[in-house]
Amino acid sequence: MSEALAGGDLQRLRQLNAVAVLRILRGDQPLTLTELAKRTGLSRASTEDVVRDLLGRGWVSEVEPAPGTVGRPARRYRFRADAGRLLGVDVGGHKVLAAVTDLEGDVLHQTRVPVAPDAGRRQRLAAIDDCITAALSGAGVTAEQIWSTGVATTGLVDGTGKVMLSDSLPEWTGVDLTAHLRRLVNSPIRVENDCKLAALAENWRGVARYAKDVVFLLAGLRTGAGLIIDGKLHRGFANSAGEIGALPAAGWERAPEHLHGWLTPGAEVEQVFLAARDGDRAAQRAVRGYVRDIAIGTSALVLTLDPELVVIGGGFSRSADVMVEPLRRELDRWCLRTPEIRVSAFADEGVALGAVRLALEQVESTLYGNSPATPALFAAHRR
Amino acid sequence: MSEALAGGDLQRLRQLNAVAVLRILRGDQPLTLTELAKRTGLSRASTEDVVRDLLGRGWVSEVEPAPGTVGRPARRYRFRADAGRLLGVDVGGHKVLAAVTDLEGDVLHQTRVPVAPDAGRRQRLAAIDDCITAALSGAGVTAEQIWSTGVATTGLVDGTGKVMLSDSLPEWTGVDLTAHLRRLVNSPIRVENDCKLAALAENWRGVARYAKDVVFLLAGLRTGAGLIIDGKLHRGFANSAGEIGALPAAGWERAPEHLHGWLTPGAEVEQVFLAARDGDRAAQRAVRGYVRDIAIGTSALVLTLDPELVVIGGGFSRSADVMVEPLRRELDRWCLRTPEIRVSAFADEGVALGAVRLALEQVESTLYGNSPATPALFAAHRR
Repeated sequence: MSEALAGGDLQRLRQLNAVAVLRILRGDQPLTLTELAKRTGLSRASTEDVVRDLLGRGWVSEVEPAPGTVGRPARRYRFRADAGRLLGVDVGGHKVLAAVTDLEGDVLHQTRVPVAPDAGRRQRLAAIDDCITAALSGAGVTAEQIWSTGVATTGLVDGTGKVMLSDSLPEWTGVDLTAHLRRLVNSPIRVENDCKLAALAENWRGVARYAKDVVFLLAGLRTGAGLIIDGKLHRGFANSAGEIGALPAAGWERAPEHLHGWLTPGAEVEQVFLAARDGDRAAQRAVRGYVRDIAIGTSALVLTLDPELVVIGGGFSRSADVMVEPLRRELDRWCLRTPEIRVSAFADEGVALGAVRLALEQVESTLYGNSPATPALFAAHRR
Repeated sequence: MSEALAGGDLQRLRQLNAVAVLRILRGDQPLTLTELAKRTGLSRASTEDVVRDLLGRGWVSEVEPAPGTVGRPARRYRFRADAGRLLGVDVGGHKVLAAVTDLEGDVLHQTRVPVAPDAGRRQRLAAIDDCITAALSGAGVTAEQIWSTGVATTGLVDGTGKVMLSDSLPEWTGVDLTAHLRRLVNSPIRVENDCKLAALAENWRGVARYAKDVVFLLAGLRTGAGLIIDGKLHRGFANSAGEIGALPAAGWERAPEHLHGWLTPGAEVEQVFLAARDGDRAAQRAVRGYVRDIAIGTSALVLTLDPELVVIGGGFSRSADVMVEPLRRELDRWCLRTPEIRVSAFADEGVALGAVRLALEQVESTLYGNSPATPALFAAHRR
């Protein structure tokens, strides 16, 4: 029957197979062809075909047998995470964070530059430039060695990488991040909303790794959400999914007021959570009020999607131990089925990691030459 | 490279190809191999291979050239919708509706049996039996000729076809519809929530045919929702997606009170809409109040998913002309982007059509023998 398969079909199948093999090899022990075939569900012949091709491209290498091995051990293969470099940038209200990673998302160097929330557009763009320059130099790589760049920003982002709307940073609305970054890196650039990318990071390397449907909450001075549906980031028709916070009935707008009410002026919000943990009754009431409000919008997301998991991330996730139980009780009040609640382990670094994942998706999508960007990518990697 | 593809890969690819060919042929004009290859994106050789196989199974037939054709015209093929029969059943609060259709969902015969909302479990099950028997006999088919059955019911349904929870029909919680129907039909039976199936029907043959992300509202004495995400029905982790109505802040629970407040006891709800259309101010206020309340939960769904379309279906959809504009205005108030709003053309028959679609999905999933149910299916069809 094989003669019934022509070039186009074959290439489509081989591309899917290559991505399947890379997904298994990435982040795992070296594997033999037999093990790889079993894990991917591909035939041994297809597996061998894909591995041969990936060896040629430098994405995969053969592992030396352990010293002292007798006889002829089966060849084992591993993903070459150091075949390329990725850049992930988180442009937040209070900081810019840039991370240079290998192809598994392991951070080689990370730089953080503080920015005032009321900084103007120019100042924030300058901070991005400084941050990226420092991250590249810290990692010892040039801009030409970066295969792909992902950028996370607060606000809604359109398909070209322009910020359509930013409530928290009004000066930021309309900024064209792709055009700005084009001066610094010459490989592909993708821009996406920060909550969406933090959700992606959890599904990639975080606490939602094995879940197909996930509601991710970015809990901090603002509350946001990112959704993983059927194992993929859900963007929506105009890239505006997850914006339940815009509905006053969802309670997210007013939620932080409970915390501010307890604080003395100038104090860090973190202190409410610390005081609540230490048994301060008024602080505990403030946290309960905050949780009661974010639970309404969270319940709306849960009732809509019936996810497997709710993940709490963002700045407040460091204090999530005092939030999880009250949140569970509130969800029990409103939801037909309360999902498992997990706390992100990334603190405020998840967004940048999600940006790295976005860069990696760009690289994967150009694998096997179905995009004009590919020759440049592989050229960069081969030099 | 073809020797690199082994049996398992080939079969997987051929199954996908067969479904792609059937999807194109179904509901379209007869097509030549060249046209089919172009529309599916498959190679001509793969297309020919699939068509040859489908001819053998009786799913596809060759169309006679038009009389008087000279020369050798290219062969054209069409889907044989009459190769099999499907049964779709809608078990509602006020009625049971059963439809016998061909494989395109064209209804051969449909039967409606009224049931009182306060009927007990036994009475409702008896109405189902009567309704199915009458539909089969009206269509002139025996139960053995039905390839697959889909059943829609109010309430949450588990993976085995048992009703987990029904708020509107308390006696209905716990009923095992699959087990009950097994006595009437011996082909596969699938059971699903009515709002979900009505959404599926709109995406299949209704006003949401070309949309990938859809919020479907079942508007009637109860309000429910079904979600199409990325072209597929979204069920959720425990099959409980779309249940935003359970959240009091969503307003769906209290929405019908506006309508009842206007009505004299015993009058049909429909009359409020008729009066509003005729200019009755009090009726218009009642409709606006109703719309204001359902708009909150609808906005929560829209803000969460950012769908391309909102579809209004269910009993009230016949009066949707007086609802659409007020609903659009309310969504404009709360949503970042108001999606297009369309009204279902199925009135209260969309749910049964969705049940037919569920039956058809079952048939498609067993295509090419990856389920034990297949031999029986094809045996039934060949007799």
